[in-house]
Amino acid sequence: MSNEFIWPVRVYYEDTDSGGVVYHSNYLNFMERARTEWLRSLQLEQDDIIRKYDIMFVVRSLSIDYIKPALFNDALIVKSTIQKLGRASLTFEQFIMRHNDEEILTRGLVKVASLNVTKKRPAAMPKAVYNQFVSL
Amino acid sequence: MSNEFIWPVRVYYEDTDSGGVVYHSNYLNFMERARTEWLRSLQLEQDDIIRKYDIMFVVRSLSIDYIKPALFNDALIVKSTIQKLGRASLTFEQFIMRHNDEEILTRGLVKVASLNVTKKRPAAMPKAVYNQFVSL
Amino acid sequence: MSNEFIWPVRVYYEDTDSGGVVYHSNYLNFMERARTEWLRSLQLEQDDIIRKYDIMFVVRSLSIDYIKPALFNDALIVKSTIQKLGRASLTFEQFIMRHNDEEILTRGLVKVASLNVTKKRPAAMPKAVYNQFVSL
Amino acid sequence: MSNEFIWPVRVYYEDTDSGGVVYHSNYLNFMERARTEWLRSLQLEQDDIIRKYDIMFVVRSLSIDYIKPALFNDALIVKSTIQKLGRASLTFEQFIMRHNDEEILTRGLVKVASLNVTKKRPAAMPKAVYNQFVSL
Repeated sequence: MSNEFIWPVRVYYEDTDSGGVVYHSNYLNFMERARTEWLRSLQLEQDDIIRKYDIMFVVRSLSIDYIKPALFNDALIVKSTIQKLGRASLTFEQFIMRHNDEEILTRGLVKVASLNVTKKRPAAMPKAVYNQFVSL
Repeated sequence: MSNEFIWPVRVYYEDTDSGGVVYHSNYLNFMERARTEWLRSLQLEQDDIIRKYDIMFVVRSLSIDYIKPALFNDALIVKSTIQKLGRASLTFEQFIMRHNDEEILTRGLVKVASLNVTKKRPAAMPKAVYNQFVSL
Repeated sequence: MSNEFIWPVRVYYEDTDSGGVVYHSNYLNFMERARTEWLRSLQLEQDDIIRKYDIMFVVRSLSIDYIKPALFNDALIVKSTIQKLGRASLTFEQFIMRHNDEEILTRGLVKVASLNVTKKRPAAMPKAVYNQFVSL
Repeated sequence: MSNEFIWPVRVYYEDTDSGGVVYHSNYLNFMERARTEWLRSLQLEQDDIIRKYDIMFVVRSLSIDYIKPALFNDALIVKSTIQKLGRASLTFEQFIMRHNDEEILTRGLVKVASLNVTKKRPAAMPKAVYNQFVSL
């Protein structure tokens, strides 16, 4: 296993705006798809985690630099690494790049926290989940 | 009271696509905002209805004609009427028009059903809600 | 080649709403992704078509039945066929199904028209494009 | 005039996700609506600025803290100030609050750059626009 995960994303009309480029908040959606698929690749399904542990992941903070725009029909990849791992949170660094030339379009840092769903309060992530991240 | 409800909508970048116009599915969002605000104007808050009656409204079917496109920055209005009222469903006719010249941009028919949230099955709407619609 | 095209779609948080299901207008986005990918599978890239022929496809009308809801994390497929082919328009029938059991969740009919981009008027689609559809 | 602008936003189903709260990237949309309306309140229409000056505003970078979630039906306000004004960029600080108790839900910093549309390069904003911001 490796602390890097690549996920492909295609740009459709729904993602663009009348400036002719991907609308700025939609890059965050691409980044979340990549995080979800990374978890899935580790056998961590978020709906299962909620049912089993009453724990969900929520975005606590993020920063993003928009370097070059993505365009309609672009084939993109999201390259993610975990930069910091705590008991109740983890921080992803995520780059969105064009697939063909690996030109970097955006760079983001996303801090995700684990939350007890019932109590709506921060809570340590389940051991089984945490251990998966440690072993990357 | 009257069986017609007007709700203004402004077009932002988020609503448009790289074709330079409002993305086709986003008109449905405008139409739902208008239905929500009509209910609110009748003192019917959908989160209250769920809590009190375990009933929610869901879209069952819809059809829409795209006649002219709406553009970035357009001031629009959504004009809604109830075309058909049943015990467990109602059908809205909704026009999206430009505010300044009332040019019709889209015309939609949206059938909304009331649903028992726990059982996830069709259910008659609460009497208090139904009576509000009857009295329009 | 065949007059049927299957495209997989995964449901992410961005697609759902607080009712716990996919938000009703987002199914239309899934359907458009499938149409775009069908065109791509025929070597028809929509940005190329605009550049070469000054022609774009726009949604003219649609109807959709919401039969069962899709949920967070669902693996879906969109099954599309062309129901009617004209010189300047085509009508797709599109089913969204769960991948595992092929349960039908929505059924839609989408009429797409070809448009001269500069004149913003209906126009026959390019012969090369039309012939691709005829030969399916 | 004043270096503060308040804009109301209502949360609709389209804004929420199956976690029961506003989806994290949609707060950015609310913040952009507020920036657009602030410009409009200064008689600065972004489509006019493109046509007259060949200049548009794009988001260059942003950071956001998610403090408390917004829920379906919440009446929110976006409170914006300009934190830094340059010739070719400006940085907004934007708080999203509940309307009734002014509880802060998110805090964001958004750096917006002015861009020559034709050359797709950074460019000083038009004097008439810049002077509006200076005079706040």
